Amino acid sequence: MGVLDQEKADIIAKVCDEILTGQHDDQFPLVVWQTGSGTQSNMNSNEVIAYRAHVLLGGSLEDAKKKIHPNDDVNKSQSSNDTFPTAMHIAAYKMVMETTIPGVEKLRDTLKAKSKAFMDVVKIGRTHFMDATPLTLGQEFSGYVAQLDHGLKALRNTLPHLAELALGGTAVGTGLNTPKGYAELVAKKIAQFSGQPMVTAPNKFEALAAHDAIVESHGALKQLAVSLMKIANDIRMLSSGPRSGIGEILIPENEPGSSIMPGKVNPTQVEAITMVAAQVMGNDVAISVGGSNGHFELNVFKPMMITNFLQSARLIGDACVSFNDNCAIGIEPNTPFIKRHLENSLMLVTALNPHIGYENAAAIAKKAHKEGTSLREAALALGLLTNDQFDQWVRPEDMIGSLK
Amino acid sequence: MGVLDQEKADIIAKVCDEILTGQHDDQFPLVVWQTGSGTQSNMNSNEVIAYRAHVLLGGSLEDAKKKIHPNDDVNKSQSSNDTFPTAMHIAAYKMVMETTIPGVEKLRDTLKAKSKAFMDVVKIGRTHFMDATPLTLGQEFSGYVAQLDHGLKALRNTLPHLAELALGGTAVGTGLNTPKGYAELVAKKIAQFSGQPMVTAPNKFEALAAHDAIVESHGALKQLAVSLMKIANDIRMLSSGPRSGIGEILIPENEPGSSIMPGKVNPTQVEAITMVAAQVMGNDVAISVGGSNGHFELNVFKPMMITNFLQSARLIGDACVSFNDNCAIGIEPNTPFIKRHLENSLMLVTALNPHIGYENAAAIAKKAHKEGTSLREAALALGLLTNDQFDQWVRPEDMIGSLK
Amino acid sequence: MGVLDQEKADIIAKVCDEILTGQHDDQFPLVVWQTGSGTQSNMNSNEVIAYRAHVLLGGSLEDAKKKIHPNDDVNKSQSSNDTFPTAMHIAAYKMVMETTIPGVEKLRDTLKAKSKAFMDVVKIGRTHFMDATPLTLGQEFSGYVAQLDHGLKALRNTLPHLAELALGGTAVGTGLNTPKGYAELVAKKIAQFSGQPMVTAPNKFEALAAHDAIVESHGALKQLAVSLMKIANDIRMLSSGPRSGIGEILIPENEPGSSIMPGKVNPTQVEAITMVAAQVMGNDVAISVGGSNGHFELNVFKPMMITNFLQSARLIGDACVSFNDNCAIGIEPNTPFIKRHLENSLMLVTALNPHIGYENAAAIAKKAHKEGTSLREAALALGLLTNDQFDQWVRPEDMIGSLK
Amino acid sequence: MGVLDQEKADIIAKVCDEILTGQHDDQFPLVVWQTGSGTQSNMNSNEVIAYRAHVLLGGSLEDAKKKIHPNDDVNKSQSSNDTFPTAMHIAAYKMVMETTIPGVEKLRDTLKAKSKAFMDVVKIGRTHFMDATPLTLGQEFSGYVAQLDHGLKALRNTLPHLAELALGGTAVGTGLNTPKGYAELVAKKIAQFSGQPMVTAPNKFEALAAHDAIVESHGALKQLAVSLMKIANDIRMLSSGPRSGIGEILIPENEPGSSIMPGKVNPTQVEAITMVAAQVMGNDVAISVGGSNGHFELNVFKPMMITNFLQSARLIGDACVSFNDNCAIGIEPNTPFIKRHLENSLMLVTALNPHIGYENAAAIAKKAHKEGTSLREAALALGLLTNDQFDQWVRPEDMIGSLK
Repeated sequence: MGVLDQEKADIIAKVCDEILTGQHDDQFPLVVWQTGSGTQSNMNSNEVIAYRAHVLLGGSLEDAKKKIHPNDDVNKSQSSNDTFPTAMHIAAYKMVMETTIPGVEKLRDTLKAKSKAFMDVVKIGRTHFMDATPLTLGQEFSGYVAQLDHGLKALRNTLPHLAELALGGTAVGTGLNTPKGYAELVAKKIAQFSGQPMVTAPNKFEALAAHDAIVESHGALKQLAVSLMKIANDIRMLSSGPRSGIGEILIPENEPGSSIMPGKVNPTQVEAITMVAAQVMGNDVAISVGGSNGHFELNVFKPMMITNFLQSARLIGDACVSFNDNCAIGIEPNTPFIKRHLENSLMLVTALNPHIGYENAAAIAKKAHKEGTSLREAALALGLLTNDQFDQWVRPEDMIGSLK
Repeated sequence: MGVLDQEKADIIAKVCDEILTGQHDDQFPLVVWQTGSGTQSNMNSNEVIAYRAHVLLGGSLEDAKKKIHPNDDVNKSQSSNDTFPTAMHIAAYKMVMETTIPGVEKLRDTLKAKSKAFMDVVKIGRTHFMDATPLTLGQEFSGYVAQLDHGLKALRNTLPHLAELALGGTAVGTGLNTPKGYAELVAKKIAQFSGQPMVTAPNKFEALAAHDAIVESHGALKQLAVSLMKIANDIRMLSSGPRSGIGEILIPENEPGSSIMPGKVNPTQVEAITMVAAQVMGNDVAISVGGSNGHFELNVFKPMMITNFLQSARLIGDACVSFNDNCAIGIEPNTPFIKRHLENSLMLVTALNPHIGYENAAAIAKKAHKEGTSLREAALALGLLTNDQFDQWVRPEDMIGSLK
Repeated sequence: MGVLDQEKADIIAKVCDEILTGQHDDQFPLVVWQTGSGTQSNMNSNEVIAYRAHVLLGGSLEDAKKKIHPNDDVNKSQSSNDTFPTAMHIAAYKMVMETTIPGVEKLRDTLKAKSKAFMDVVKIGRTHFMDATPLTLGQEFSGYVAQLDHGLKALRNTLPHLAELALGGTAVGTGLNTPKGYAELVAKKIAQFSGQPMVTAPNKFEALAAHDAIVESHGALKQLAVSLMKIANDIRMLSSGPRSGIGEILIPENEPGSSIMPGKVNPTQVEAITMVAAQVMGNDVAISVGGSNGHFELNVFKPMMITNFLQSARLIGDACVSFNDNCAIGIEPNTPFIKRHLENSLMLVTALNPHIGYENAAAIAKKAHKEGTSLREAALALGLLTNDQFDQWVRPEDMIGSLK
Repeated sequence: MGVLDQEKADIIAKVCDEILTGQHDDQFPLVVWQTGSGTQSNMNSNEVIAYRAHVLLGGSLEDAKKKIHPNDDVNKSQSSNDTFPTAMHIAAYKMVMETTIPGVEKLRDTLKAKSKAFMDVVKIGRTHFMDATPLTLGQEFSGYVAQLDHGLKALRNTLPHLAELALGGTAVGTGLNTPKGYAELVAKKIAQFSGQPMVTAPNKFEALAAHDAIVESHGALKQLAVSLMKIANDIRMLSSGPRSGIGEILIPENEPGSSIMPGKVNPTQVEAITMVAAQVMGNDVAISVGGSNGHFELNVFKPMMITNFLQSARLIGDACVSFNDNCAIGIEPNTPFIKRHLENSLMLVTALNPHIGYENAAAIAKKAHKEGTSLREAALALGLLTNDQFDQWVRPEDMIGSLK
């Protein structure tokens, strides 16, 4: 836009390309626990660029005055206060699009395929961790698919806020020392470079002083963590055994599970993903505490917030892929256990409610439970129905609704 | 749909109308800390309805057999497992629509009006709690408006999930013992009664076994809490004083602030809203922990989750209205303080960057800071510019960007 | 101490005694969401006391000037800033001593008795929710006892901080407008009245500006919540069934568990206590956020912090008593399930490690698992040991260590 | 204890010494997100030790059978289930003793020295972020010292639980396959090696199935985080300015604070420590969620829990040292600001309460506030006292209590 000599712009761009190759990685030694605006990281970049450019232009690092100035040239039209949150949004957006969403979708697709494959496998349901009326294993898995679909939708809902870039706001959001039109143009360029629909933030004051976009998107990551904890716990419990657990599904055996118990197979992938879920739930609090503590024109919890965000977004994506590839994809029904549980179930009695009423049905179930008999035996002993009626009314395959 | 006699349906409806008037409130003594499915609350309702109907039909409470049965009649086609989450969603949706959103909007509108009214009030900016380049008080407030607008949008994004009703899923989501078409019809009726766009949940297994819709919507409430904490803190700090604080705005004096310090006025409304924000941040964790701990076909943290949700939704709405009416609406700029701070500011030096470079500008600011002089004095003493140049370049009113 | 007329002191004391009977409860209408110092509650008290005293002394509420002044007399030597945190500590201390600790101890004692009673009941262990080497049911329960013992110790460790009273610090901690020796004397009196070892806070500035004592004690409550979640989950899972779960213990059947499934019994007490645990984990965040946001001489999250604290302390105590009386006390081993699981277990193979090595033992377990046979059959088929050696080496009762 | 050949024991010990030098670091590639028992890390160690020992004994990595077996020899008398939590406790204990406590103590000592040095610097107090009665800067700092002292005490209170080691419990806590006396002996050896007062856990079932010791100690770390947030916020606000803030203390100028605003100095050390505090508050939730989700004989959130713990413990220690060395140690009172604020204060009027009553005093403060005059002027204008009385009664230096 005419504020920086073309020659300077070119050499700065050239150094940036070098940096992208990773060859100067050792020149970026800073940790997260620096100033809360990321100024030190921004100046680190500015200085590496300026000094490397100076060298490329024939200068020496010992020269008192460099040909390219870190503040006046490299940081031109910029402030840490707008570049750092811009970098935060680019990094977060890309991580969500390239790692989180594809990872969750991969697992969702597998669970959906499993749901279809298992749609006719009638099994006992469980509420309160207690035997309940039947459903199919496919129906059970369809709930997991719905959870992830809802989570993905929730995450996508947050993206427009995350697409807003602070660049052009400079020090306090007013755009001091930037040329007119800079904010819009730079957002357009970033959209092109990143391939993501980035836009300039309509309100730069919000974009510097608050990081609600990070809070918002991480809220959706936390929702996914909550869902994954539920799903993984179910799979852990359904696959428990091999002899003395619920045992209704089989999961792949990937590695010896125990250093002392020979032949033990454990749901290690489940454990990795539930640890990730706990971590994300914790990160959500760190981000919320940071987000709530901005003052005036600047939130100064930026490096901490983005670090937690990127960890959560990456972990969810990676853990879903690993869980998918090493566990979900190999899940199979354990037919003997499923059948035994279903046949033993006392809650099939629920099908009798419309015919003999809740209280009579309860009497049957209680008698069977107390005496360790089958429902049929108890029902007949109580004289509440005939053998034929039992056959006609108590049919698990009729108790599972329509399988759409 | 033909499964319940019209006479029974009518008397049940009649009792429900009685209940709505509040005349049987003392018959609902249960607390939150009951079974996690809310079965006890559901049966409480079923029994009150059945027994009151029995009495209305001429029976006596002492009768061993009642004319209306709590399970077979009142609970017909229902299970606690689908009625309770349905009640959760109706209550949550209505609270969000009727209390949270109107409350936040009211505050947003006031802050927007203030932002416009203060758009020309140039004042010092602050980053890192330290003096920075200027902006207008209206710009500062526009950031708050943007925060609340984003929060409202985030909250509205979650409503479609919250509009999904579990009713029709009965015990485990399969819809056992319900007539065909019941789920869709009952959702339609509830939409009519409630005036909210309720729909039957496409996946009933998710609707019983998980409460991600509650997690999702509360995530948006938590985001609003984070925003309100930031906004309220700013107002607390901007109004601090009256003599030895920042003191750039005046807030209404509502009541004596101290039992011991005469004449003290405190930002009590700010304190109420920041306490609410902290509470909502805590409630979010309780809800997430509950949401993540569902097992198999049922989440059994329902009463705890909805209690926390309703508290958060109500508190945010109510606190915004109270903060609006008793504080925000009366905020005025404290011109003498604003002017003094602006004139003293060393960060106006930033306007010199494009003219004399960052390092020269820094030398001026440091000299003025060290010697306690004005920027102008320091600049002239260093010989870096002329008096006229200072007049021309250092103009706070030119440092605030375009005020759209 | 001579600063208030004896007559005034007497009438104030008389009104306070009236208040304690509850007869003026309707004169205290304030909610939590007021000023963060609790000044409004303090002044509410001061005014009720002053005006009621005025009436008792023969005055009328319409009198412009009252015989007792709410600030000059009732609040004498006091400030909201020291009375409110003093009330917080007294209330918190008493709740912990009178409700939390006795409740947890009651449950601990029952679990300890159960642990002793079940000490010889050998059962399968489970790690990773998978079958593992055996232990006794009593050993399993001893872990719960150890958790609660550690939790109680942790809670007691926090009491000395909670026993520190702010009274005497007045407005900012300096004790302005109090007679010399007041702080020590009033703490002594409160210790006498309350029967708790209250002391005057050595540092009044900390006692007003921070509420780390509340944070500290609530941290221990949160630890108890974490422990209770684990214990209750175990009991929920161990009692799962009645036919298709783990089913190794029986819990009391307190009420019909389902409105639709006849004869269903649910672990309602477990669900109440795990909901409480989730609530306490959320309250801990609300308290931490509040505690971290004090400024200068005063933390202004007081009413919110103490409300959450008292809820947690009360809920833990009450829930433990209810869980104890309605569930824990009636827990019994379900011997047939325990026996079947133990006999089926493949992890008894671990006892062979010292004799034939981990890899041979693993081969036996894997063969038995794959072929659905017993360990003995697999071991003999592989020729790795004799029938007698199997009898001698694989003895569950020898695999449980010493039962002290 | 005679269960492992001396020769094998020696070579294992030799390899362990090699490992401690760091020369095999690249053989430990595992991440946190593995199985929740840490079995993979334990087996990684066992295998590196066994195979390296095999090589040292003249074998080749290609040999099918190694001279040292990872399970039968290296893992002898061990299980991942007891070694991993033992390593957790050793690492946590050492980090707390060697990094956290010394770091916090260093800051505490500096703040204590500052408190003494500033004990006579009378300044305005602030409650509700509003002007209040005076105290000294030393008194203000003494509150911070008290907070850290309480935090250190709370942390030390948790150490006995953290000193309990699981080793000797093996797979499920029964000590299967360990020689008698092993648990006690190994704890004694570890106490000698580590120089910390480690003991064998009295209840191994708790030590494997729960990690309440980690929850407990991290609760104290979280309390310290809450305290540090308060202290750092105060220092951030007290040092705000340099011209338009509170400005009552000066903090060291370590580096240019802004990439765009020349001469700007920011409280970067404050920001690092408040980011750390937010992180620790988040980690506490991750740890609590993990701690609450153990099942039966094993908690499988171990790697996640210890990672968060070590990060918190290290960050608090390191951040305190950095904050101490680069900020706290250089804090000085900014006398001109302190004096100006004190002289302007309206809350000195509180000293008049005992002489003229709260309401008269309030009238003076309100008049002075409204008219922008001094208290003296307002008091005299209202005729409530004489000039001499004002001199005698309103003395800031008499309003700060006894400075012990």
